[in-house]
Amino acid sequence: MKLKVRYSDIETPELSVLLHDDDCAEIGVADGDRVALTGPKSTVALVSKSDTLLQRGVVIMKESMEPLIAVPEGGEVEVTFSPIPDSVRAIRKKMDGETLTRDEIYGVVMDILENRLSKIEVSAWLTSLYINGMDIDEIAHFTRAMAETGDILSFDKETVFDFHSLGGVPGNKITPIVVSIVAAAGLLIPKTSSRAISSACGTSDFVETFCNVELDADTLKKIANTSGGIFAWGGSMNLAPVDDMVIKVEHPLGINPRAQMLASIMSKKLAIGATHLVVDIPTGAGTKVPTLEVARAYARDLMDLGERIGMHVECAITYADQPVGNAVGPILEARECISILEGAQHPSSVIEKACDCAGIILEIGGITNGAAKAREILKSGEAHRKFIEIVTAQGGSPDLRSEDLVPGKYTYEIRSSKSGYVHTIANKNIVGMAKAAGAPSDKGAGLFLHKKKGQRVEQNEPLITVYADNEAKLARAVDYARKYPPMVIEGMLIRHVSPLDARK
Amino acid sequence: MKLKVRYSDIETPELSVLLHDDDCAEIGVADGDRVALTGPKSTVALVSKSDTLLQRGVVIMKESMEPLIAVPEGGEVEVTFSPIPDSVRAIRKKMDGETLTRDEIYGVVMDILENRLSKIEVSAWLTSLYINGMDIDEIAHFTRAMAETGDILSFDKETVFDFHSLGGVPGNKITPIVVSIVAAAGLLIPKTSSRAISSACGTSDFVETFCNVELDADTLKKIANTSGGIFAWGGSMNLAPVDDMVIKVEHPLGINPRAQMLASIMSKKLAIGATHLVVDIPTGAGTKVPTLEVARAYARDLMDLGERIGMHVECAITYADQPVGNAVGPILEARECISILEGAQHPSSVIEKACDCAGIILEIGGITNGAAKAREILKSGEAHRKFIEIVTAQGGSPDLRSEDLVPGKYTYEIRSSKSGYVHTIANKNIVGMAKAAGAPSDKGAGLFLHKKKGQRVEQNEPLITVYADNEAKLARAVDYARKYPPMVIEGMLIRHVSPLDARK
Repeated sequence: MKLKVRYSDIETPELSVLLHDDDCAEIGVADGDRVALTGPKSTVALVSKSDTLLQRGVVIMKESMEPLIAVPEGGEVEVTFSPIPDSVRAIRKKMDGETLTRDEIYGVVMDILENRLSKIEVSAWLTSLYINGMDIDEIAHFTRAMAETGDILSFDKETVFDFHSLGGVPGNKITPIVVSIVAAAGLLIPKTSSRAISSACGTSDFVETFCNVELDADTLKKIANTSGGIFAWGGSMNLAPVDDMVIKVEHPLGINPRAQMLASIMSKKLAIGATHLVVDIPTGAGTKVPTLEVARAYARDLMDLGERIGMHVECAITYADQPVGNAVGPILEARECISILEGAQHPSSVIEKACDCAGIILEIGGITNGAAKAREILKSGEAHRKFIEIVTAQGGSPDLRSEDLVPGKYTYEIRSSKSGYVHTIANKNIVGMAKAAGAPSDKGAGLFLHKKKGQRVEQNEPLITVYADNEAKLARAVDYARKYPPMVIEGMLIRHVSPLDARK
Repeated sequence: MKLKVRYSDIETPELSVLLHDDDCAEIGVADGDRVALTGPKSTVALVSKSDTLLQRGVVIMKESMEPLIAVPEGGEVEVTFSPIPDSVRAIRKKMDGETLTRDEIYGVVMDILENRLSKIEVSAWLTSLYINGMDIDEIAHFTRAMAETGDILSFDKETVFDFHSLGGVPGNKITPIVVSIVAAAGLLIPKTSSRAISSACGTSDFVETFCNVELDADTLKKIANTSGGIFAWGGSMNLAPVDDMVIKVEHPLGINPRAQMLASIMSKKLAIGATHLVVDIPTGAGTKVPTLEVARAYARDLMDLGERIGMHVECAITYADQPVGNAVGPILEARECISILEGAQHPSSVIEKACDCAGIILEIGGITNGAAKAREILKSGEAHRKFIEIVTAQGGSPDLRSEDLVPGKYTYEIRSSKSGYVHTIANKNIVGMAKAAGAPSDKGAGLFLHKKKGQRVEQNEPLITVYADNEAKLARAVDYARKYPPMVIEGMLIRHVSPLDARK
């Protein structure tokens, strides 16, 4: 039927229209069905019904849909029932546990990209992936579809290295060190990173405290072609954009289906043009990967998938039972990261992890004794020179020094109530505490750990200094630590089990 | 953090608030997370983020949320992160294929009722139910939870009969006949029906052409206590309201998980106070229940569930390879239904089905030879008197006659292109054609079938008359019939298979 168009400035992500209940009955559609809108141009949109927000004979849609139908405000558009699109049929097939074809998977990805699927449908898609999974061929199609529906970069060199961490361990500030070492060795590593989703500080969250991370694709390519390395935020380019759209539905469900996770990582790597990839899999209590078996399964999946999409993949399973280094939070991590590049010998866990990961990349690039070579590049100052070159290209200061970075002025020292040894550092509580202090949005917020696992502690000695940008959040973080202890101190005798206990 | 409240008249079903991106970062929430809103009163709401629709320091919510926080427009409300509710944990458990406890199921149903779950979460719930299912104990909890979160009616008599059809077969206009016979026999049957969701005409769609179906609970009880029967629309009362909310998410996905379907039917029956239920399971090609095995499985499920919730359930597996009777569409079905009550002998399929179903109810009610007794009540005019009594109580005319009901004035006769026998009547195409003609919202729209399966047809003899309320829809229905033939006519020799064919 013909309806009069009214545009509204209320934006919704989906392509949807508001229709009167009686017009819906006339057209034969219900809430969540689709209608075809035909003017000089035509599109399909999801139906929302109302009998209070508009009168009969009118269709309301968001302003951004005007170019899709080319009908001005007040003009007429033909509104008719539109059958279920093929992508919804594919979602139903996945609900039924069937294997999807390449075309079906591309159809779903295209329809997510163009907002033709409702949140209800994307949620059903993710839930089906979570429960029924995908085989490795389906994941390969899914990965390619997500990459190909965005921009794909290319560089002067044919061999493009990349590095990725599955994350989950706090304080993991090694990326700028790895990139600087690899680029200093003459290899190309155009590394994009993300901001924190559930963690206290993503790589981009701390890198942006000392240089610009929001680069467009041309700037990124120019810097990478010149300097060999980059530390950019992936979100400011159009790389695998469907992945970012899906995360918005995935996040409230608190699920990360294996197929979606693998396709998410690898589509970003395809989009950046990577040919060789090293993946860091932090493994330990309180991270995404609790055990070595789980880590090996991830490694196998990533390498299988790499083979199918034509990318060489190697994995580094790394120790993550406690934070990497001593600092957690944007400015604190930036300071620690840069101090290592400047030549500091502590914390050694940061040096070791960065050099071991960089070493794997160097060896893939044909440099023997990669880890030793990485240490040499770091020690000689070459990595620091390369780091400053990249920072300057990204708009940072050529005189950047770690001591220039000053964390939040409100601080509190958490001290040990007894003497003993650090028995446990609870990753999840460290993250929760840093977030309570304001990280990652408050750049100065975070934690400095004075002690790591196994170290001797005297009664009343400082364990952690909390930093915040304002007093209220400082109090909130201290409060959090009382409820969820970040460290456990024990004597050498951890527990005495007597026959009395055994009887309980 | 404290934010200034602005109310908007845009209604959304969910309890949601709009926050500025930077305030979200400050609070530590993302799209789809939840915040606690604390004023003099407090509630929890879902977060939508925007950096264009509002400035920092402001929270926008719909007007209907004002009583939940008791903060006036422009007042301040404390907005803090709110952890994932237990119902979302229960949904995740169902995703993982686990069995849910009674409390978990009640929690999900309560949170759907009070709009605390987003569409994303309800979709994940339904998808999980579809894939992982529920055992019969879970379904019983689910049924009770859906019934108990709405009104539960009670009547003067202790034994309350009910009748339900799984539907799916067009022209199934027997409900008013069954109710009239059962009530005339002195039993209580307060029957509520639905409007069409995907069919061409639900019971309420045709009953409302001759009397009011939108009754409140008090009127329904009064009429049922007085006359013993009712033909009301279930949607105007607060019976198992969560079911109606879930349908809105289920419909666009095109799924009807077994657990949801069973709980949906039986919760409505618990709500109406039914103690004894007969379920009609139409079985045949092009319906929801294609084979006898599937029908038996449904019957077993319904009886098992009945046992667990304390309701006596019997099932009638009925023939549904073609429409019931000759008429499809609101006024056409009303006319045929009433003519049978007035004493017409045709179509016999309507008489047989109505009397057989009513007969089962009579026997449960202690009346021997139920089907014969039902025929007697119909033939004697007792059923018609009872029908007119109920119609009058529901605001219809005491002088109602079938011939008073006049279908759409635009008609077209579909004629046979050859002589032969009616080999197939395609239920799905009959429904599609009636909907193309305008049913169920155009009351006069529909089809009259001159021939049924197995009948002899001469070339050019009328097969179907199409009725519509306007010319455009008449043309649309005829067009539909050309694309999707409603009837197949064949000679006695249906196909000649030669060795040549066999080699193909």
